Amino acid sequence: MRTSKYFISTLKEAPSDAEIVSHKLMLRAGLIKRLAGGIYTWMPIGLRILRKVENVIREEMDRAGAIELSMPAVQPGELWQESGRWEKYGPELLRLKDRHQRDFVIGPTHEEVITDVVRKEVRSYRQLPLHFYQIQMKFRDEIRPRFGVMRGREFLMKDGYSFHTNFEDLQREYRNMFETYSRIFERLGLKFRAVAADTGSIGGSGSHEFHVLADSGEDALAYCPASDYAANVELAEALAPSAARQDGRQPLEKVATPKRTRCEDVASFLQLPLTKTVKAIAVMHDDAFSLLLIRGDHTLNEIKAGKLPGLDPFRFATDAEVERFLGCKPGYIGPVVIDRANIRVIADRSVAAMSDFVCGANEEGYHLTGVNFARDLPEPDLVADIRNVVAGDPSPDGKGVLELCRGIEVGHIFQLRQKYAEALNCAFLDENSQSQIMEMGCYGIGVSRIVGAAIEQWHDDRGCIFPPAIAPFTVCIVPMGYSKSAAVKAAADTLYADLQAAGVDVLLDDRNERPGVMFADMELIGIPHRVVVGDRGLAEGKLEYKGRTDSDAQMIPAADAVGFLKGRLCGV
Amino acid sequence: MRTSKYFISTLKEAPSDAEIVSHKLMLRAGLIKRLAGGIYTWMPIGLRILRKVENVIREEMDRAGAIELSMPAVQPGELWQESGRWEKYGPELLRLKDRHQRDFVIGPTHEEVITDVVRKEVRSYRQLPLHFYQIQMKFRDEIRPRFGVMRGREFLMKDGYSFHTNFEDLQREYRNMFETYSRIFERLGLKFRAVAADTGSIGGSGSHEFHVLADSGEDALAYCPASDYAANVELAEALAPSAARQDGRQPLEKVATPKRTRCEDVASFLQLPLTKTVKAIAVMHDDAFSLLLIRGDHTLNEIKAGKLPGLDPFRFATDAEVERFLGCKPGYIGPVVIDRANIRVIADRSVAAMSDFVCGANEEGYHLTGVNFARDLPEPDLVADIRNVVAGDPSPDGKGVLELCRGIEVGHIFQLRQKYAEALNCAFLDENSQSQIMEMGCYGIGVSRIVGAAIEQWHDDRGCIFPPAIAPFTVCIVPMGYSKSAAVKAAADTLYADLQAAGVDVLLDDRNERPGVMFADMELIGIPHRVVVGDRGLAEGKLEYKGRTDSDAQMIPAADAVGFLKGRLCGV
Repeated sequence: MRTSKYFISTLKEAPSDAEIVSHKLMLRAGLIKRLAGGIYTWMPIGLRILRKVENVIREEMDRAGAIELSMPAVQPGELWQESGRWEKYGPELLRLKDRHQRDFVIGPTHEEVITDVVRKEVRSYRQLPLHFYQIQMKFRDEIRPRFGVMRGREFLMKDGYSFHTNFEDLQREYRNMFETYSRIFERLGLKFRAVAADTGSIGGSGSHEFHVLADSGEDALAYCPASDYAANVELAEALAPSAARQDGRQPLEKVATPKRTRCEDVASFLQLPLTKTVKAIAVMHDDAFSLLLIRGDHTLNEIKAGKLPGLDPFRFATDAEVERFLGCKPGYIGPVVIDRANIRVIADRSVAAMSDFVCGANEEGYHLTGVNFARDLPEPDLVADIRNVVAGDPSPDGKGVLELCRGIEVGHIFQLRQKYAEALNCAFLDENSQSQIMEMGCYGIGVSRIVGAAIEQWHDDRGCIFPPAIAPFTVCIVPMGYSKSAAVKAAADTLYADLQAAGVDVLLDDRNERPGVMFADMELIGIPHRVVVGDRGLAEGKLEYKGRTDSDAQMIPAADAVGFLKGRLCGV
Repeated sequence: MRTSKYFISTLKEAPSDAEIVSHKLMLRAGLIKRLAGGIYTWMPIGLRILRKVENVIREEMDRAGAIELSMPAVQPGELWQESGRWEKYGPELLRLKDRHQRDFVIGPTHEEVITDVVRKEVRSYRQLPLHFYQIQMKFRDEIRPRFGVMRGREFLMKDGYSFHTNFEDLQREYRNMFETYSRIFERLGLKFRAVAADTGSIGGSGSHEFHVLADSGEDALAYCPASDYAANVELAEALAPSAARQDGRQPLEKVATPKRTRCEDVASFLQLPLTKTVKAIAVMHDDAFSLLLIRGDHTLNEIKAGKLPGLDPFRFATDAEVERFLGCKPGYIGPVVIDRANIRVIADRSVAAMSDFVCGANEEGYHLTGVNFARDLPEPDLVADIRNVVAGDPSPDGKGVLELCRGIEVGHIFQLRQKYAEALNCAFLDENSQSQIMEMGCYGIGVSRIVGAAIEQWHDDRGCIFPPAIAPFTVCIVPMGYSKSAAVKAAADTLYADLQAAGVDVLLDDRNERPGVMFADMELIGIPHRVVVGDRGLAEGKLEYKGRTDSDAQMIPAADAVGFLKGRLCGV
């Protein structure tokens, strides 16, 4: 492509509403153009990137045996009523009425439609398994769209749905997709991790998220560098300390801790390590009051706590409730000398292993030191994992210690099991002519989100650095004086034609802009390889080459430029 | 592709609501599956066809210099208010409110959005011309969706928009698109005609429709086999007869024509040719009454009549109005002896050239014969072209006579001029730094509709006959006993692998169905070339070949099957 026949429109500054680097760079590089909140036009260069991502996904899905089709974006409301999601889905579901006042939705996902197709098309176990997928623009009415394409309202998605005669076969396809997704993100040139995930609102059980690693990621992940273990911090298990609880050696004492309500302040005031303090968190389940005990340096994991018997669901107690049950204001509360008939004490595994610890005295301005279970207060009513893991915690697979990082969720695979198949009566006849409900899996990739995530992972202060597989162009040719020097024009045109003939996706910048402008644009857009054609180099039969992440340019023989570049392209 | 790893689902009978052959065959061949009225899932085989059509269009648009981008489907209502179409567009425009109660539409077309992009991106004449296009699913809330994908509610469309500094440049691009569209439909293997068209609701002036010719087409077309002339019958000009009016030779007589109200009945009763009769059609414009005179064998063209001064718009007079102005019931009305001060007489060009004609006597049960202008009634107040052309009429370009046919509109190019650019203030700075409004063109192709149109044009009683460029697969291999005969399996697998290696889009039917079932499916789906692999032929080193439209199969050497097939593919 020649820039003179193409559309390049870059900005020096990003609009002020762009908060994260990918959003800023996508606007500055002219990849997208805002139409409304969370709704963007994919400009020509942006669309090239999106299509390259899409094609890698399509190739790998086809190779994995999935079959592409295309379902309607506008779906009848009846199907959503049949599945029960008409009521359950919140206002993200864009609902509308057609001219005959019939209910429709703009589908954010297609479980209902594909299940309807399959229940009508498939009769026999002989037709199974089947895996259908599509790549389609979807709409989700986000209350606060932000971060450009990372949390947009209109977005491109690959969604696939598999149908099976039994759970074992679903698990086989789930593994197939786990491997396929891993291949896709590898081919896209992204650092990623597959993590065990909460199933969220889509339902069913058994799921993994695929995250592109980036500091700006919305999700906190825990992973073990020594193994494959990775999980969302929300779900990563914090193991019990390996060492048993030691016997208490200090006496129980009440100490004045005026105006110190946070563990950090109490530890520093008493000159004790934070790991010797215990914070008590008061929560309610209906009218039942519980104290959750967490080590001072840990944080409560509300998802884990919320799954405990008697705490599903819980809410934090009000100040009035704390005073009613403990006779003390929040800030100095603790588990010692309380009405254990009406107050349940639930200790995190770490707390249960502590001795000689510090906690609130249930008296304003005082804490207790040298506290020990069994001696100073009864054992907890329940010991459980209710905290978030921290870096250095042992990995739950026993193979090392955990590290933390942040990720951007770009893929998600689910074992839906029979949730939708049952609701929509998607059945088949088995070998004995008995009707059985199918098992289902579903597999999504946020195609447009990948473009943003790739930039979050790969950029510098000059702009995007696209992995070659998804770069809008692989090579750019920047001539110095295209319209002034016949030699430069001839050399640039020849190299352009030769690279095109060699199947290289090349952009020739024939705009006759100043070199600085052209260099800045090509770097901002993130083209991996740059060749500068100038009279001075040509006099010595040379061209100047610079990789997007190279610190310095190098001179290469003009005669073998195509060979040199092809070597670079393979090498990446 | 192997059928065992693919999804083929054919029906013996089409659902009863399918009215036309393409709708029936698309459902029977399993190309589409109905989700709601006018809303279909494109099943795997159908999607392959759609993608092939899409790719031909994309290649030719790129070659023509247009630049692909992708605009949002969901568009803010404000833009439609700005262009004035929010009010003008009827209920086909699907309107909705987001969760913040802001107005949005599901865009049936994108003039507003692209004009908004360009007015924000383009400053200078140096950036023009520009032509952006996209290929996208669109939604139009048809009141009565029917004919499958031919008049669906959700449909795939290629829409392009060009921007220019002046009208001459718009005209250049318009011709470029005229040629590009012609190349596209040629490559798709369709018989088509480009016809001058009414601009309809999209506005602007200067437009052509591209029609695929098929008996079931909704549009009546007139074309001249001896030249390039083609037009929608609505617009084709009926020239004035070349011979001047002859002097009347018959006396004016009133004759009884009891119960004969139609020209055909009157002519037959009086034993005169239908071409000697004139029918009078009473119409109203506000309170003004006019009689339109058309030769008995002709039909009124309401579009032409509606454009005449004083008839824009008109409606047909009620029986009461006819009686009030003419003192006679409809069926016997005519232009003789009437109150010409209050009744306007508008004669078609053919009528103005008639002499000694027959018309109603304005008296129930009577007609007049031997009627002549000037002698028996004043000359018409206006002579104009107000009839539809008929086969045999002279071509308006003077190069022969017209033929009629029916067509399915699949493409439309418009010179929008400044309609949207003006409303949205889409301006540029010219060479003198003066702000000027841009000139615009727009260019649409109904991608999904082409699939239906292709079937309307190419089918037989066994199913679809896809042109090779858009066939879901180019060649099918049908083995006789794939799982029973090792020789058949080996030969089929080898041919399959060889054809794939040769880049041929091949389907191997390894389902082990009965031969009749496989033959019927492959013919129904419309695969252009079929190779049957059987033990009997293999014993002689032969395979059986049959083109989809061949009457008989032929035996070909198995050793050279790939060469033979490649020759066939090139030959098509």
